[in-house]
Amino acid sequence: MIEGKILTIGEILVEIMATTLGRGFLELQPLIGPFPSGAPAIFIDQVGKLGHPAAIVSAVGDDDFGVLNLERLKRDGVDISAVAIHPGAATGSAFVRYRPDGGRDFVFNMRDSAAGRIVATPEARAVLAEAGHLHVMGSGLPVPAVFAMIRDAIPAIKARGGTVSFDPNIRVEMLRDPAGKAAFQTVLAATDIFLPSGEELSLFSGASDEESAIAALLETGVNEIVLKRGAAGASHFDRNGATHMPGFVVEEIDPTGAGDSFGATFLVARRLGKSIPDALRYANAAGARTVTVKGPMEGTSSFADLDSFIAGAIIKGTA
Amino acid sequence: MIEGKILTIGEILVEIMATTLGRGFLELQPLIGPFPSGAPAIFIDQVGKLGHPAAIVSAVGDDDFGVLNLERLKRDGVDISAVAIHPGAATGSAFVRYRPDGGRDFVFNMRDSAAGRIVATPEARAVLAEAGHLHVMGSGLPVPAVFAMIRDAIPAIKARGGTVSFDPNIRVEMLRDPAGKAAFQTVLAATDIFLPSGEELSLFSGASDEESAIAALLETGVNEIVLKRGAAGASHFDRNGATHMPGFVVEEIDPTGAGDSFGATFLVARRLGKSIPDALRYANAAGARTVTVKGPMEGTSSFADLDSFIAGAIIKGTA
Repeated sequence: MIEGKILTIGEILVEIMATTLGRGFLELQPLIGPFPSGAPAIFIDQVGKLGHPAAIVSAVGDDDFGVLNLERLKRDGVDISAVAIHPGAATGSAFVRYRPDGGRDFVFNMRDSAAGRIVATPEARAVLAEAGHLHVMGSGLPVPAVFAMIRDAIPAIKARGGTVSFDPNIRVEMLRDPAGKAAFQTVLAATDIFLPSGEELSLFSGASDEESAIAALLETGVNEIVLKRGAAGASHFDRNGATHMPGFVVEEIDPTGAGDSFGATFLVARRLGKSIPDALRYANAAGARTVTVKGPMEGTSSFADLDSFIAGAIIKGTA
Repeated sequence: MIEGKILTIGEILVEIMATTLGRGFLELQPLIGPFPSGAPAIFIDQVGKLGHPAAIVSAVGDDDFGVLNLERLKRDGVDISAVAIHPGAATGSAFVRYRPDGGRDFVFNMRDSAAGRIVATPEARAVLAEAGHLHVMGSGLPVPAVFAMIRDAIPAIKARGGTVSFDPNIRVEMLRDPAGKAAFQTVLAATDIFLPSGEELSLFSGASDEESAIAALLETGVNEIVLKRGAAGASHFDRNGATHMPGFVVEEIDPTGAGDSFGATFLVARRLGKSIPDALRYANAAGARTVTVKGPMEGTSSFADLDSFIAGAIIKGTA
């Protein structure tokens, strides 16, 4: 591990949330927003809040939604020098509505928004050149310029002793596309810390049971796998074995962003020298705090927030 | 005048409205939406509601916001066969918030949305070929393919005895751009019925007082000018003189869409053979009903709605 910023590349969005449960946006309804959002943005905001040097390569439009996001990231300590502001473009957006069964319906403006036009600007090259760790968020890989930047950055970061983490954050359709599948395999082959959610594990290994999937991934050269199990907590796997950490009992208000906050917190804790169990506990706490608050980035945490939450928390199975 | 549909070309949008007064979208706030919107869409919905044959050339994305708009227009009697559905594109959107002074702040997604990609499809050519009247909404003119379609359609419609109306619906910046100014002049030169709002009148004539501006416009070949004065009503000018019609006294909730409903109603009333004073009265009533309802297209009216409104209404200055 080397010093340096944790860097991520990908979409900055606003989220507009329906305040009632139901299906989609086919009728007039009460909404709340704009919330700063985008999986890479939530991740890097959490890194910044923990006091670790952090930067994001992204793009927004020259509108209020871009300003809202940039001000939030800056306030929380993130280097936004490599976020391009595209004149005339719209900042990306996601309308989200929860269904009664916990599923979600979306209306996205991403592909043709500023978030779909992230390119390797001189500012992006500058933050890439000084990064100590690259976190790849799978949601950004369909943007060709984002994948190209990641593909080119990985060997440079590795060559100077840096590390790579990968949160697949994937839709199944993307692995059906040969180019999409190749992009995922390229990143996975360079991944030091892999951070799948439960259901994503089998997509990568082809193995149907957890044990074989983990074994197959360790075989390919991934050093550590952190399996996010949502409310049930998380498990860490490496060549030395497995560490399981139960989740905290909280009332779930809005799960969006929990996985991103979890990943950022695990990563920062490890970079600060904390043990695997401590890092998992902090990461679970960060995820748990996120789900108790409406808005994807509204529940990101400082270490003080996490320590105070853990001190008063109930652990799953002990209540 | 010939029989046939009233046709318009331009943007279909959803509107998302802030429910509190203030400046812009720089912080989290309650919202309501999606409302079907877009000036040409509001106009043509009002034409459809009055029972006149109506069609629109436009484009939406393959998302809930597109479905919402298409279902509304179809329900209200508009031919939507020439509305293209662009796979992967987002339906255009406008976030609007009223300031305490009555001004409005917007966040648009238009240029790179489906609304920015309206092109002359075979379906568009088919509805253009059978239209009896073309209504040009200035807001669509910055899209090159929209202007090209209008420029090509005008001589064809005129050649078969059809007519052209023009609602400038303009931002001052557009007239500063030489191409924008040329587009406006091209349309104005072919306009039979010109429908400016108060402040737009002088933008076109260069004259500072109303009388000279009207005289200059009639001089260039415009047959009729209908000046929209908002709450104060409207005035009609032609070579025979002027007709003034006071507005109706209503409580203004949301003025968006009033001018579009006004224009549609004046036009339909005249095509149905109503006198100038009757057409102005109906148009004022349509505009007044629009402003009493939240949402740009929620207050469009049938003739029965207008007759019942007029029967119970208070006219400005007589209260």
